[in-house]
Amino acid sequence: MFRKQNPPPGSQPGTLAIPAHAPAPRIRAMIYSPELFEEHDVDKVCTLKDFLRDGSVTWIDVQGLGNEAVLTSIAELFRIHPLILEDIVNVPQRPKIENSQYHSCLICWMNRLVPEGGIDQEQVSIVVGRDFVLTFQERSGDVFDPVRSRLRQGGPIIRGSGSEYLTYALLDAVIDGYYPILETLGDALDTIEQTMLDSRKPRGLRRIYKLKRELLSLRRAVWPLREVTNTLLRDGTPFLSKKIQTHLQDCYDHCIQLIETIEVYRELSVSLMEVYLSMVANRQNEIMKTLTITATIFIPLTFVAGIYGMNFEYMPELSIAYAYPLLLAIMLVATMGMVGLFYRKGWIGDGINDEDATNL
Amino acid sequence: MFRKQNPPPGSQPGTLAIPAHAPAPRIRAMIYSPELFEEHDVDKVCTLKDFLRDGSVTWIDVQGLGNEAVLTSIAELFRIHPLILEDIVNVPQRPKIENSQYHSCLICWMNRLVPEGGIDQEQVSIVVGRDFVLTFQERSGDVFDPVRSRLRQGGPIIRGSGSEYLTYALLDAVIDGYYPILETLGDALDTIEQTMLDSRKPRGLRRIYKLKRELLSLRRAVWPLREVTNTLLRDGTPFLSKKIQTHLQDCYDHCIQLIETIEVYRELSVSLMEVYLSMVANRQNEIMKTLTITATIFIPLTFVAGIYGMNFEYMPELSIAYAYPLLLAIMLVATMGMVGLFYRKGWIGDGINDEDATNL
Amino acid sequence: MFRKQNPPPGSQPGTLAIPAHAPAPRIRAMIYSPELFEEHDVDKVCTLKDFLRDGSVTWIDVQGLGNEAVLTSIAELFRIHPLILEDIVNVPQRPKIENSQYHSCLICWMNRLVPEGGIDQEQVSIVVGRDFVLTFQERSGDVFDPVRSRLRQGGPIIRGSGSEYLTYALLDAVIDGYYPILETLGDALDTIEQTMLDSRKPRGLRRIYKLKRELLSLRRAVWPLREVTNTLLRDGTPFLSKKIQTHLQDCYDHCIQLIETIEVYRELSVSLMEVYLSMVANRQNEIMKTLTITATIFIPLTFVAGIYGMNFEYMPELSIAYAYPLLLAIMLVATMGMVGLFYRKGWIGDGINDEDATNL
Amino acid sequence: MFRKQNPPPGSQPGTLAIPAHAPAPRIRAMIYSPELFEEHDVDKVCTLKDFLRDGSVTWIDVQGLGNEAVLTSIAELFRIHPLILEDIVNVPQRPKIENSQYHSCLICWMNRLVPEGGIDQEQVSIVVGRDFVLTFQERSGDVFDPVRSRLRQGGPIIRGSGSEYLTYALLDAVIDGYYPILETLGDALDTIEQTMLDSRKPRGLRRIYKLKRELLSLRRAVWPLREVTNTLLRDGTPFLSKKIQTHLQDCYDHCIQLIETIEVYRELSVSLMEVYLSMVANRQNEIMKTLTITATIFIPLTFVAGIYGMNFEYMPELSIAYAYPLLLAIMLVATMGMVGLFYRKGWIGDGINDEDATNL
Amino acid sequence: MFRKQNPPPGSQPGTLAIPAHAPAPRIRAMIYSPELFEEHDVDKVCTLKDFLRDGSVTWIDVQGLGNEAVLTSIAELFRIHPLILEDIVNVPQRPKIENSQYHSCLICWMNRLVPEGGIDQEQVSIVVGRDFVLTFQERSGDVFDPVRSRLRQGGPIIRGSGSEYLTYALLDAVIDGYYPILETLGDALDTIEQTMLDSRKPRGLRRIYKLKRELLSLRRAVWPLREVTNTLLRDGTPFLSKKIQTHLQDCYDHCIQLIETIEVYRELSVSLMEVYLSMVANRQNEIMKTLTITATIFIPLTFVAGIYGMNFEYMPELSIAYAYPLLLAIMLVATMGMVGLFYRKGWIGDGINDEDATNL
Repeated sequence: MFRKQNPPPGSQPGTLAIPAHAPAPRIRAMIYSPELFEEHDVDKVCTLKDFLRDGSVTWIDVQGLGNEAVLTSIAELFRIHPLILEDIVNVPQRPKIENSQYHSCLICWMNRLVPEGGIDQEQVSIVVGRDFVLTFQERSGDVFDPVRSRLRQGGPIIRGSGSEYLTYALLDAVIDGYYPILETLGDALDTIEQTMLDSRKPRGLRRIYKLKRELLSLRRAVWPLREVTNTLLRDGTPFLSKKIQTHLQDCYDHCIQLIETIEVYRELSVSLMEVYLSMVANRQNEIMKTLTITATIFIPLTFVAGIYGMNFEYMPELSIAYAYPLLLAIMLVATMGMVGLFYRKGWIGDGINDEDATNL
Repeated sequence: MFRKQNPPPGSQPGTLAIPAHAPAPRIRAMIYSPELFEEHDVDKVCTLKDFLRDGSVTWIDVQGLGNEAVLTSIAELFRIHPLILEDIVNVPQRPKIENSQYHSCLICWMNRLVPEGGIDQEQVSIVVGRDFVLTFQERSGDVFDPVRSRLRQGGPIIRGSGSEYLTYALLDAVIDGYYPILETLGDALDTIEQTMLDSRKPRGLRRIYKLKRELLSLRRAVWPLREVTNTLLRDGTPFLSKKIQTHLQDCYDHCIQLIETIEVYRELSVSLMEVYLSMVANRQNEIMKTLTITATIFIPLTFVAGIYGMNFEYMPELSIAYAYPLLLAIMLVATMGMVGLFYRKGWIGDGINDEDATNL
Repeated sequence: MFRKQNPPPGSQPGTLAIPAHAPAPRIRAMIYSPELFEEHDVDKVCTLKDFLRDGSVTWIDVQGLGNEAVLTSIAELFRIHPLILEDIVNVPQRPKIENSQYHSCLICWMNRLVPEGGIDQEQVSIVVGRDFVLTFQERSGDVFDPVRSRLRQGGPIIRGSGSEYLTYALLDAVIDGYYPILETLGDALDTIEQTMLDSRKPRGLRRIYKLKRELLSLRRAVWPLREVTNTLLRDGTPFLSKKIQTHLQDCYDHCIQLIETIEVYRELSVSLMEVYLSMVANRQNEIMKTLTITATIFIPLTFVAGIYGMNFEYMPELSIAYAYPLLLAIMLVATMGMVGLFYRKGWIGDGINDEDATNL
Repeated sequence: MFRKQNPPPGSQPGTLAIPAHAPAPRIRAMIYSPELFEEHDVDKVCTLKDFLRDGSVTWIDVQGLGNEAVLTSIAELFRIHPLILEDIVNVPQRPKIENSQYHSCLICWMNRLVPEGGIDQEQVSIVVGRDFVLTFQERSGDVFDPVRSRLRQGGPIIRGSGSEYLTYALLDAVIDGYYPILETLGDALDTIEQTMLDSRKPRGLRRIYKLKRELLSLRRAVWPLREVTNTLLRDGTPFLSKKIQTHLQDCYDHCIQLIETIEVYRELSVSLMEVYLSMVANRQNEIMKTLTITATIFIPLTFVAGIYGMNFEYMPELSIAYAYPLLLAIMLVATMGMVGLFYRKGWIGDGINDEDATNL
Repeated sequence: MFRKQNPPPGSQPGTLAIPAHAPAPRIRAMIYSPELFEEHDVDKVCTLKDFLRDGSVTWIDVQGLGNEAVLTSIAELFRIHPLILEDIVNVPQRPKIENSQYHSCLICWMNRLVPEGGIDQEQVSIVVGRDFVLTFQERSGDVFDPVRSRLRQGGPIIRGSGSEYLTYALLDAVIDGYYPILETLGDALDTIEQTMLDSRKPRGLRRIYKLKRELLSLRRAVWPLREVTNTLLRDGTPFLSKKIQTHLQDCYDHCIQLIETIEVYRELSVSLMEVYLSMVANRQNEIMKTLTITATIFIPLTFVAGIYGMNFEYMPELSIAYAYPLLLAIMLVATMGMVGLFYRKGWIGDGINDEDATNL
């Protein structure tokens, strides 16, 4: 929920703090225009400037932040301000947008379901300039594959609409990546709800808590994303023209939809928690009723039996002929009376109402 | 609560994603002016343009979104932007309003009680142009029948007030459609409340939870509808003139009233949940009291009987003549003392107060 | 809490929906100027225009909305727009203000304590024109009697300050009418609180719930009233001049005071609910303690007595001379030991702290 | 929490409603300038105007509102508008600021700890004109003594800075008066917290409720005071010049600090309530555990003893020589087995964890 | 949580109230320019002005506020307004920014983990002028050491960027100082969560409460800090030029991130509290089940044994040959029946689900 913020307090602004275990950057360049498409793995940063060509857009895709020298060279090449580079490297930063003279930098959090289960959250930074887009992410694996496919397959819109359209497509992919996660959480909610409805036992406390935790984590990522998108819509940047506004409006609408869904899920999980507590309390009532009925019937009877087990010399009842069967009969009547009373109180039988109270 | 959002993440904007089970579109056209009224079932989309006539308004009513070719043809005919068509087809979208040069598009969620019980929620999109109105809905069955009747019966206002008045009438019908649902939920609340007031047993947990869930679902539909109406009021669109403002103000007021009612219901359902929990706790106290009274009276007595059931050779009391009746008398007095004590503590009798505590 | 909204969904705007049981209108006219005061019961609507005289103000007071023809005639006479008439007749509407060229219409909810107990809530609509004021209410009985008295007794301010001052006086009477209700609810809160403080038993669940319900109902009426008053203050209307602003500021301040009081009451009722639940839980602890103490002392003793009630042939203790009194002594010592242990645990005696925990 | 609002609903605005038990006004005048200081008890209102002198400031201090004639005379002398006089006299009014041509009137609530314990809340109205300040309070006893001392001792700043500085000093004294109260409440919170941390018993429900009530009462007084101060800062009044702004900013900051402290206290009291409830529940678990351990061990043993207390003729075990000591040994082993089981379940011993769960 | 506010209510503004135990000021001066660095302990305030030199920046670092004369001399030397000096000395003040002609004064709260455990919160006031920065703190020990190191080591940026950069660096250090605290609290949350997940016993109530208290305390410090930073960003001050804006934006972003983290932690601690309560309730159910099973099986059996322990003369069963073994067999069957019933009810065995309900 809270990863260590680097560098240590009081450091000079612009200090890069790269954790020891950060994977080394893998760099990939895609150069495209309506007529052209090239894709290269980049080994040496110095070759990067060869990929910038007039009339085509270059997407430099940096996966892994584990090499300060490489990152600094890239920053110099694309004139990224040290404070912006700091935000790109010292993850996690709050999602935001930063503009400079040469480019705009969008920082946002990418969430995706990983095959081994669970949600992977990492920071992705998108630097957009006149004819290039740089993306930085913490490690390999992202939600950008559909965008890569569309570039490779040569869709005329994405190939012909410049760096701003690519930026939008990437942002859109990040936002769209939240939907499968919310679907999974929605399914989890449904399962918990169904389990509660079908079972007489309270279950699912652990799952509700985990769900709440994941919703908190998502909300923390989506709210600032909404702000970023809204800032783009309202103020624009020199590198995202008016033409892209309609598309950004779509991103913004999706953010709002995500937020509303998260809020609805949160309210439902609160309600389920209340239902859980009620079921625990109802179950306790059921247990107590069983105990009370047994004890209330048999403890007085045992007392009576105890009376006639006493060894007093003068107990006239003991020698009466039919005293024993009579006493048994009286005990039976008393028991039936008690059962009748409990029935009237609704503690025995009347099972439908009881079930209504015990099940969800 | 959360239907799958189509198309898959990262798709090209404007991609239509039609689920396999979507019903095929049924198209119906109504052409009207103060003097004229025609109604046609439309089989071929190409015939649609014949229904557009100078001086009259045409309402094209599309029910079902299951045929991409048909929808695309309609979009081309009425010059609907691919991104807007995407919002119309890839349901559910958050309610919103989108303007283009040729028309405005209102997206909202229609809720209605279905005869078999429960609430049916579907997206309805209203595209309004200079002299036509298009409505798209997911399946047959809607809240527009009163509007159709008014058109057929030839009310002078609706027939003579152009496409903008029809749009208002449709929006008004959508908003009015929420009232019967809220009435049903209000009745449900009343029933739960009454059941709780009359019963000594806690009941209705399942119903309260379901109610809350439905209120959440309604709130999620009405809030953005309020926004849409407010945007129409504040900014207007080229296709809804100032003349229609007074009517739209009415729609807005109704949205606010709906929202306030939903909020009141939500607070009441929270209070009822608390009352439910209190009743469960009170019931447990009642059960515990029964057990405690029985056990506290009879366990010590049983012990005393046990004492005189022991087989020691020298127990002088056993041979005293009136020991047995005396012991019984002492036991009776002790029991009466205990009962008196419980009475003073308010555990026995004092029934009115008890009832006050147990019933609601 | 939620009365049926008429007319049915999708009806033509301006349709009046008068419930079958609505009382027939009783109309009363008061004509006044500094020198003049007349009061008439009006039987025929057509005579109404005779009461409009230059230089004097006419207050037409319509009680009961059960006659469409009468209401429509009045609307025509005073040029009330059909949509405004709809809001006046199709009660309840959300409190609001509507302006037209000929008059302004204030819709608000009047609450008053009725002698038979409970709160009566009805809609009152005040239409103010240049030299007339119309009030429409659902049935007889209102909070306007003090205003009527002031008119009859000829206070120079109210008689000489035109229709706008009368409007203010009526609005002020509506707002002032909430105070006695809040006083009653405040007294109820005090009583519940006092009962809880004085009693060892949890009581008052039903009352707290009812209180909350009434506070919700009041809040729903006062919030929009505050908006109405604020709109009047901020924007004014052509029929309420600047001169009346100081008085309206007073109304606004009272609305705020009402809202703040309602919120304080709501928070107190939430706290009382918590106290109630705590008392229920404390009471259960008290019950459980009684049971546990009894059972923990006597069940082991009963077991020991049972041992010596066994019929084994070789039980050497049974024939020891002082075994019986010795066993009794041991039992006494064990009991005293247990009591001492419970005392040390604070389960017995130490009554002051216990009381502290049990009473409020 | 809610004192009766006078006069009765619907009265003529400006009606003074003086409760029967209101103390008669005691009037005190202080005239001062840098060179001059006089202090007079005023018996007759007509002599008041003699105290207004050019070049000096007069503070008329009215304590008690129990004489309509006196109050009206003062209002006439200082040209106080009847509606403002109404707000001064018909206490309590919501704190606010009202400006007229001749003076500004600040209404606020003065809270102070009274020696006999508890908080005394009364309304104080400060009317500031060009060279006079009037203060009205409900009864004797206030927080203004330090201001009086500073006037008497002749501090050059307060004596030489006109009526606006006196107004600021009085407002500052009112705001400062909240601090000792909050300190007292903070100490109370600390005590409750400490009691909970040190005790194994849940205690303090009554105190938490009272604290919450007092915090609500304070909040209701401080919020509008903040608004008043903010209005003064933002809009100023003709009688409080720009020079006094720095000082008013200080008042505003103190209001914010008070509000934040109240909110923190409220949250803490909510948390303490939860801790209280948890402790009650933990205590119940402890009680139940004691009962369950005792009963689970001894009830089966008693049953076995009961078996061998039966009087069947053919019970072969009874005549076996060492059956009795053998049975006792078996019982001992069974008991030890149960104790071991409970120990493993953590119900017995493992005291440290138990304590962790039971104490705060 | 709430330290005594000095001076006493109603004092003259500008009165300094120094608590008796305040440590005496230790003053340290650092003079630096790109070429120069000097560091001096200052014993006499009168020598301070020698440290102000053209072309270099002087940082006067005052630790401890326990000497009024010294503080007043410094204030005079740097022309600090008495009201600002009051805010510096009469701690704690709400974080704010105050501007005068000669300098701006930032007041904020410094939080840091102290080696002996716990959080130390003290006020730090930063006065920034053209070529000097003064810092006042309550006692020795702060978060400024990294800034001092950077000055000493001669980083070209901090040495060459004037007093405004130093101010930023100090503010940044204060804000960065919150991160290690939040990390510690985050670890504490993790530990509590882990303990709950792994244990069948409810634990950690005390820790959750303490965590909540610390989060409240942090929130109270960070919110106004955000306001201060925002004011600096929006309005600037004459002593913090536009050049420093980019850096201040960074501070603001960090404040927002801190606030969001605090809110997430607060929500998690609320959820953990609910989980704790659920576990307490589940544990009670487990205890009750044990008791109920034992009692429900053995109390009826004991009663039957009691029957045949009675001493009636005519009890035919007693003399039947195999009555005793038969009875034992019947009892065994009954017990097995009960066990089966409890198993079917899910009270016995079915351990996995039980665990699911009991553990988190």
